[in-house]
Amino acid sequence: MPATTDPHTSPQGNSNPGSVDRTGRLIVTGQDHPGIVATVSTILQEFGANIVSLDQYSSDAEGGSFFQRTVFDLADLSARRPELEVQLEKRLGSQGLTWTLTLEQQLKRVAIFASKSDHCLVELLWRHRRGELKMDVAMVVSNHSDHAEVVRQFGVPFFHVPVTGDKKEAEREHLRLLKGNVDLVVLARYMQIISDEFLVEVDVPVINIHHSFLPAFIGAGPYQKAKERGVKLIGATAHYVTRDLDEGPIIEQDVVRVDHADTAADLARYGADVERQVLARAVSWHCEDRVVRWGNSTIVF
Amino acid sequence: MPATTDPHTSPQGNSNPGSVDRTGRLIVTGQDHPGIVATVSTILQEFGANIVSLDQYSSDAEGGSFFQRTVFDLADLSARRPELEVQLEKRLGSQGLTWTLTLEQQLKRVAIFASKSDHCLVELLWRHRRGELKMDVAMVVSNHSDHAEVVRQFGVPFFHVPVTGDKKEAEREHLRLLKGNVDLVVLARYMQIISDEFLVEVDVPVINIHHSFLPAFIGAGPYQKAKERGVKLIGATAHYVTRDLDEGPIIEQDVVRVDHADTAADLARYGADVERQVLARAVSWHCEDRVVRWGNSTIVF
Amino acid sequence: MPATTDPHTSPQGNSNPGSVDRTGRLIVTGQDHPGIVATVSTILQEFGANIVSLDQYSSDAEGGSFFQRTVFDLADLSARRPELEVQLEKRLGSQGLTWTLTLEQQLKRVAIFASKSDHCLVELLWRHRRGELKMDVAMVVSNHSDHAEVVRQFGVPFFHVPVTGDKKEAEREHLRLLKGNVDLVVLARYMQIISDEFLVEVDVPVINIHHSFLPAFIGAGPYQKAKERGVKLIGATAHYVTRDLDEGPIIEQDVVRVDHADTAADLARYGADVERQVLARAVSWHCEDRVVRWGNSTIVF
Amino acid sequence: MPATTDPHTSPQGNSNPGSVDRTGRLIVTGQDHPGIVATVSTILQEFGANIVSLDQYSSDAEGGSFFQRTVFDLADLSARRPELEVQLEKRLGSQGLTWTLTLEQQLKRVAIFASKSDHCLVELLWRHRRGELKMDVAMVVSNHSDHAEVVRQFGVPFFHVPVTGDKKEAEREHLRLLKGNVDLVVLARYMQIISDEFLVEVDVPVINIHHSFLPAFIGAGPYQKAKERGVKLIGATAHYVTRDLDEGPIIEQDVVRVDHADTAADLARYGADVERQVLARAVSWHCEDRVVRWGNSTIVF
Repeated sequence: MPATTDPHTSPQGNSNPGSVDRTGRLIVTGQDHPGIVATVSTILQEFGANIVSLDQYSSDAEGGSFFQRTVFDLADLSARRPELEVQLEKRLGSQGLTWTLTLEQQLKRVAIFASKSDHCLVELLWRHRRGELKMDVAMVVSNHSDHAEVVRQFGVPFFHVPVTGDKKEAEREHLRLLKGNVDLVVLARYMQIISDEFLVEVDVPVINIHHSFLPAFIGAGPYQKAKERGVKLIGATAHYVTRDLDEGPIIEQDVVRVDHADTAADLARYGADVERQVLARAVSWHCEDRVVRWGNSTIVF
Repeated sequence: MPATTDPHTSPQGNSNPGSVDRTGRLIVTGQDHPGIVATVSTILQEFGANIVSLDQYSSDAEGGSFFQRTVFDLADLSARRPELEVQLEKRLGSQGLTWTLTLEQQLKRVAIFASKSDHCLVELLWRHRRGELKMDVAMVVSNHSDHAEVVRQFGVPFFHVPVTGDKKEAEREHLRLLKGNVDLVVLARYMQIISDEFLVEVDVPVINIHHSFLPAFIGAGPYQKAKERGVKLIGATAHYVTRDLDEGPIIEQDVVRVDHADTAADLARYGADVERQVLARAVSWHCEDRVVRWGNSTIVF
Repeated sequence: MPATTDPHTSPQGNSNPGSVDRTGRLIVTGQDHPGIVATVSTILQEFGANIVSLDQYSSDAEGGSFFQRTVFDLADLSARRPELEVQLEKRLGSQGLTWTLTLEQQLKRVAIFASKSDHCLVELLWRHRRGELKMDVAMVVSNHSDHAEVVRQFGVPFFHVPVTGDKKEAEREHLRLLKGNVDLVVLARYMQIISDEFLVEVDVPVINIHHSFLPAFIGAGPYQKAKERGVKLIGATAHYVTRDLDEGPIIEQDVVRVDHADTAADLARYGADVERQVLARAVSWHCEDRVVRWGNSTIVF
Repeated sequence: MPATTDPHTSPQGNSNPGSVDRTGRLIVTGQDHPGIVATVSTILQEFGANIVSLDQYSSDAEGGSFFQRTVFDLADLSARRPELEVQLEKRLGSQGLTWTLTLEQQLKRVAIFASKSDHCLVELLWRHRRGELKMDVAMVVSNHSDHAEVVRQFGVPFFHVPVTGDKKEAEREHLRLLKGNVDLVVLARYMQIISDEFLVEVDVPVINIHHSFLPAFIGAGPYQKAKERGVKLIGATAHYVTRDLDEGPIIEQDVVRVDHADTAADLARYGADVERQVLARAVSWHCEDRVVRWGNSTIVF
């Protein structure tokens, strides 16, 4: 398949020249019981793979939930992948465990949604250009046209989808753009409500940045609320979007100190720096398969 | 007057040997208008005082609220105080401004309330012994007797006031102990409700440490709630107590990073370190007259 | 003089539309003695100015050094400036005090120097476009041509001055570009040595970002040195450039946590985020006249 | 065996009532090659042990150094330990790998050395009493007698060993106290030089807290040096002691923000809070076998 129609292996963006075809990531989750680590590591050993890093978490010493992320090094990984997947399914799937195998060189295809504010959008594009975010930016979508030029200077397609009157029309346009083309949607200060139907239809994870330290200041105007409450720290939260506004599993949070002399506008300005950092970390971790959802929480390896 | 009935100049605790009778603190607040700083500094100059530090805050460039804290150096301050107060009242009070003059050597008398947990209590006692908290610890009051020995080892009176059945009885006992004897009450993880009547009767500021980053996780069990919500940072908040639970003016807050592997018990343990630091800072700042209440916020100079 | 040749009042960059002609900043420094604050505030009162914020620091209670930054609000400030300056010189200069009066609307003209890395450069340009950095970016100068397009997209002149063979030739070219045109030079990861002669000739402050927590890891390759030493935090330092490499007065520093799994390349990547933040804060504070040099230290109000 | 001669299973201190005989910790290090994780996890599976947590680090994808910490749950661990050790040696030792097996319930026996300052000492004793530090405090040793009463109130033996004139005599006394009785020595602001001979003779790890952010401000008087250099953050470093002063492998570091108004005494006071936290974390991690030394660095799992 030509590279131009398969953005996740395209040389545009992160061509990842140092990433040859040999690094794999295996996520295993399920009901804990003795022997899972042994099974996984024995399979990898049988293929001659070397384990580069292994992170494991059990929610209880006995009978809890089990989570494991293993990064391994194996020559000709793409070619041997089908054979490896057969073994994984045979020996892990049969125990009721869930597993996912991804290749480091196969970058996730990402759509970034933004509105008027550009700080989170530019941060992601800039880090991507710099090679820090291992993803392909498939497109930027906005309900305003302001950022068209800036986005295209980064070599990324920009689509203007106004959200007025019938919101369903915009939603249908979004789905036409996204379906089959992206593995992740990032709401980089996109100030429109996401409907439950859209979440079901788009069928890929959606990450949002909320401009407060959740669960404080849920909803609109968090910096104004923070000023009124007189808090001494303000924060930002990156989370997966679920049906409940600002209630999805938290991936990352951080804060910055403020004081009485700071106005609500100052809080927004300082907060913007935290939002940029927090969202960039969350997207980076997701794209490296470091984040495992567990109920309304996340395991971040 | 004998030292035993005037704890704030007693040699026990912080005898403050380096603090001779020459450092004053002047707080001025009110409606802002041109010339207030000039008036204050001119009065001090007329007395030959040297301004050591001056912090000023106006909520707006024109017509807002005005706050100023001035620390000055003046020989024989106690002797010249009445004369200085006459001038302050004449030239500031007449403009509708509120002022408060305190002497650095006149330490605030503090009662510390605690329940089963000792971490905040011991932190305050230990910092006081070390000379870091410029206050006199008049007494420790607890609804349990567990900490009697530890407290008395620090040379501080300990009063056990059980809170069972009729809470009003305990409250009356508290007021008997406190009235006239203290300038500040610190709730160092005191796990009993403070009534509105008590707040009115005791008539001194009351500082509480809440074991969450307010306004997140108001009320009981904040660490358990934090675990359930899957937050990535936990915090603590020191605030003045008002009629509304966990809603008073915030003096100081801080946070610490946690991760998915931490249990609710781990959160409580890490949180305890934040509580200790946050409460110690808030008490220290209050005792140095650095905190000015303004509506439901604080100015911390 | 037309606006295009006078960048500090040019509408390009920060046109500062909200800043009308009424906010002034007065810095006063010198030998401390009673009455300085009174003199300053009385002069301002006589002109009908309202003090918006006042920060003061004395190095000792008696006989030390005195530093004061006062922001005030005065209608028609430009017109009344000469008259005000006469009074300041008459009543402060005569006491041996040094004073500087600047107008908020008169932005400092800044030249940014960069080499191959663009993270600090882009951060400054982006914050400037966003209105966060109150300065005029007069030019970007680089010893490489890589960033020409990016810089010009921000509407800022870019000058490529190769540094090869005779370094004196490049220095002369730098001085031709800068003399009379800028009030500040920012070295945003400019990887060439600055000569003492250049510092003398350019005669404006020069701010550098060093990619370590000074005084640790002075000189080249700090991230590699940090990896070898096995530190658990890495940092960045913004400082004024003096004759001694990495020894000038520190304006701002910050750190980020790293761990054993991070390579020297990871440290450089995480460090880049700290460098961006630290340099942006230092430049912002300098441009708002918040930084006063004192020997080899700074007072940051 | 009487408790006094076997402090690590004594009911005094952390009696660890919740820790039954079933949690083990296995550290494996050596030259990396495929199959190590599989071997370890297979052995544990054969014994019916459940892996509770597993952390692994390889310095390179191929041919580097390998480090693994595994916590497992196995009933009757003490009884089955010899059998398990035979297998570990047979299948890991034979591959040139180094392994260490410890039991969670077998607490490390610790001697704390202190001088005049009590903040680090009291912090460790208090955290131990609170159950946060999983260790047995075998003794406190000091070159001053000041802390005798405080230490003994915690139920810990205190030994006063003056260091005057012939330092070798004090060293011999230290060795008499320590040999065979402790698994770790903690220098909690102990202000005497440790000789190379002592390090060799005592033959257990020695952890020191240095009151600066190493490698900045090596040697005596770091807070005074920090004030003179005008840094904006000060820090503390916990490290293993080696022959070279302040050059040993770093376990943990942290910093706190200071400003121009802080005196060297203020820095010492704020720094003390960082020292307490950093040393407590380092000792806790060491006692939980989370720290692996690697050349002049540490792996902290």
